[in-house]
Amino acid sequence: MPRLLAKGVNAERLERSLAALSAIGGLESGAVRRLAFTAEDIEARTALCSWMEAASMTVRIDAGGNLIGRYSGLEDDLPVLATGSHIDTVPSGGRYDGALGVMAGLEVIRSLHGRRERLRHPIELIAFADEESTMVGCKSMAGLASADSLAYTTSIGEPIERCLKRIGGNWGRLREAARSPASLAGFIELHVEQGGVLEARGHAIGVVEGVVGQQRLTISVNGLANHAGTTPMHLRKDAMTAAARVVLAIEALARNHPGDPVATVGKMQVWPNAANIVPGRVDMTVDMRDLSLTVLDAMVADLHLRLTRIAGRTGTRITMTPQFSVKPTPAEPLIRQVIADAAADLGLSHSSLPSRASHDSQEIGRITPMGMIFVPSRGGLSHSCEEFTSPQQCADGAAVLLETLRRLDRQFD
Amino acid sequence: MPRLLAKGVNAERLERSLAALSAIGGLESGAVRRLAFTAEDIEARTALCSWMEAASMTVRIDAGGNLIGRYSGLEDDLPVLATGSHIDTVPSGGRYDGALGVMAGLEVIRSLHGRRERLRHPIELIAFADEESTMVGCKSMAGLASADSLAYTTSIGEPIERCLKRIGGNWGRLREAARSPASLAGFIELHVEQGGVLEARGHAIGVVEGVVGQQRLTISVNGLANHAGTTPMHLRKDAMTAAARVVLAIEALARNHPGDPVATVGKMQVWPNAANIVPGRVDMTVDMRDLSLTVLDAMVADLHLRLTRIAGRTGTRITMTPQFSVKPTPAEPLIRQVIADAAADLGLSHSSLPSRASHDSQEIGRITPMGMIFVPSRGGLSHSCEEFTSPQQCADGAAVLLETLRRLDRQFD
Repeated sequence: MPRLLAKGVNAERLERSLAALSAIGGLESGAVRRLAFTAEDIEARTALCSWMEAASMTVRIDAGGNLIGRYSGLEDDLPVLATGSHIDTVPSGGRYDGALGVMAGLEVIRSLHGRRERLRHPIELIAFADEESTMVGCKSMAGLASADSLAYTTSIGEPIERCLKRIGGNWGRLREAARSPASLAGFIELHVEQGGVLEARGHAIGVVEGVVGQQRLTISVNGLANHAGTTPMHLRKDAMTAAARVVLAIEALARNHPGDPVATVGKMQVWPNAANIVPGRVDMTVDMRDLSLTVLDAMVADLHLRLTRIAGRTGTRITMTPQFSVKPTPAEPLIRQVIADAAADLGLSHSSLPSRASHDSQEIGRITPMGMIFVPSRGGLSHSCEEFTSPQQCADGAAVLLETLRRLDRQFD
Repeated sequence: MPRLLAKGVNAERLERSLAALSAIGGLESGAVRRLAFTAEDIEARTALCSWMEAASMTVRIDAGGNLIGRYSGLEDDLPVLATGSHIDTVPSGGRYDGALGVMAGLEVIRSLHGRRERLRHPIELIAFADEESTMVGCKSMAGLASADSLAYTTSIGEPIERCLKRIGGNWGRLREAARSPASLAGFIELHVEQGGVLEARGHAIGVVEGVVGQQRLTISVNGLANHAGTTPMHLRKDAMTAAARVVLAIEALARNHPGDPVATVGKMQVWPNAANIVPGRVDMTVDMRDLSLTVLDAMVADLHLRLTRIAGRTGTRITMTPQFSVKPTPAEPLIRQVIADAAADLGLSHSSLPSRASHDSQEIGRITPMGMIFVPSRGGLSHSCEEFTSPQQCADGAAVLLETLRRLDRQFD
């Protein structure tokens, strides 16, 4: 595969390291189960540590459990150019989500090391702790972690204090994991798209505009439970038909606001949920995401108006309760441009898109300029044994990551 | 209450017998728990038997467990004019559902007996077995009971054979409970409305047009489960938004077809039912009821068309599966007219309406001319401790029942 080698990384070696990592926690189905803080996670972190050291990186684990390999720079007191992602997975995850960002970062440094090439800036490759559940790693590095251990529900059900200790972190000193903005030049994360946009466009590289913000709400529709036979249509206060109007209003929100926001009703519960009873109550969740905080706020306000109208028309009482919100993290425009230029110069088709999933860079991007590179996910599938990005696509992403780091190294002080 | 006495029944006595019956299985909440075949049901049947005998009725129990009191006629070989209802309840039922029909029938015969008045036809007062669950009583009397004991799920979880035996019925001889159409002149059932129509109209008496038929279906909407963040709106196959359109289409069906059909989605289940996942599948139940079989069939056909359109527009696959259907039972026009005339001559406001709940008369009405008299239910509530019909309203219903039986006695051969 000479074309790939010409781009500065070794596609076969990258493929081999992805395979080696996915063997740790690999299931028969082809899925990977490498939950944060479990034996599989620790085995993978230990392997990664040795791979980093073999590429001449200095390795440490911070109080937040983040595994950090440092590849020193020609001007080693310059702020750090950081890259990375995570190697923990969901209970039945794929081979690429998170893993690609870490293994491609490793491949980039192996390639530099193989050529005895050093950048001006030191490079740090970071495997963040527990991205899939608590995000304790990236949040602590951004200085945004909660000090309340009860705020963390780990996917393995153990207290965060014990989990962190097991992987070399330290709950009592969590604040020491926070990096000062001055210590970082920027952070670049390569990740699989986990959606179908790039595949639909036929593009090799996605230049991420930012990580969308999220507004999570619950809505409760309260009508009057009644006999499905004896209650004429005009005397009903049917929570189900009102809830159906709410679901369609939420869908319309996403279509009517500018940009490409998404809005989802993923969960619904009906009371009393019997075939012969007009439902008296329907609860549902709402998940809205967009790059623009202004748009998100406008969607919430618009939703409130629509709920009032629906309640009036259907004789129901509808309440909306915020659950949590996450502010959008825009990518740094300069980095977006560098990624786009790097892709173009490597002959790779590319286009811009938002990241609508959460990533470590959404937190790191709050303290340092952030950029993200996406590569396509086949069928848009992720968090699944069917998650797939081809060796070529992975190598293309790694090549753009290397070229982006090189160009930023020249542009940044 | 001289006005009530003038109508031929004793309102206070009726109120006392309703109170005596509701004491059997009465709960602290005011609800009544008198499940068929339980000790409470048997105690109530025993009490009813003694009350019947005290009013000079001859009492028997048929193979279907129906308790039958016969008040002989002047021409005792004429076909029977029958009335009655049931005295079993749902797990937390009201004082009037079923009970009123039986106690009012008792009051009518007590009144006749007190005046030493006999009609030409013999009158039978029937307390049907297990109306609330298997309807084994009325079905066996109509000759429509299944011979497969596994077809019966009793509310107390015991096999129907043992249940019937306990109350004096006989599973092995169930077919002997079937009455020939020639043996019956007609059947009149007084019942609380269990809905809010009469109360809304301010009418004392409802002349029932018939017991509606029922069509029960399940619908399964199959889309594609996907990430609620990373899947743009236009790439979704969202089973939830498609299901919302189905719910509203079903509501529209009821409004768009002639008469006053009802259609209800009472039960819904969502997969995977997580806030951050676009639903991949939604299942729901559909319950449609109307007096006209033609309308019901047209609604099913219309629903099928609408589902096809929704599936096409939303990129989902929608299947519809019939669960069961019950044919409508129209009331006999002559009896409807007699009930209306009787109410008018007693100075009681009245109007026509369908019965959208199931009743014993829906089965008996398949073998003999049937009529039903409704009295109002406060707030339309039933199957609840809040079920209430005032003593005046109960007495008005009993007076119309007596007058209807007298007039039919003259009109029928």
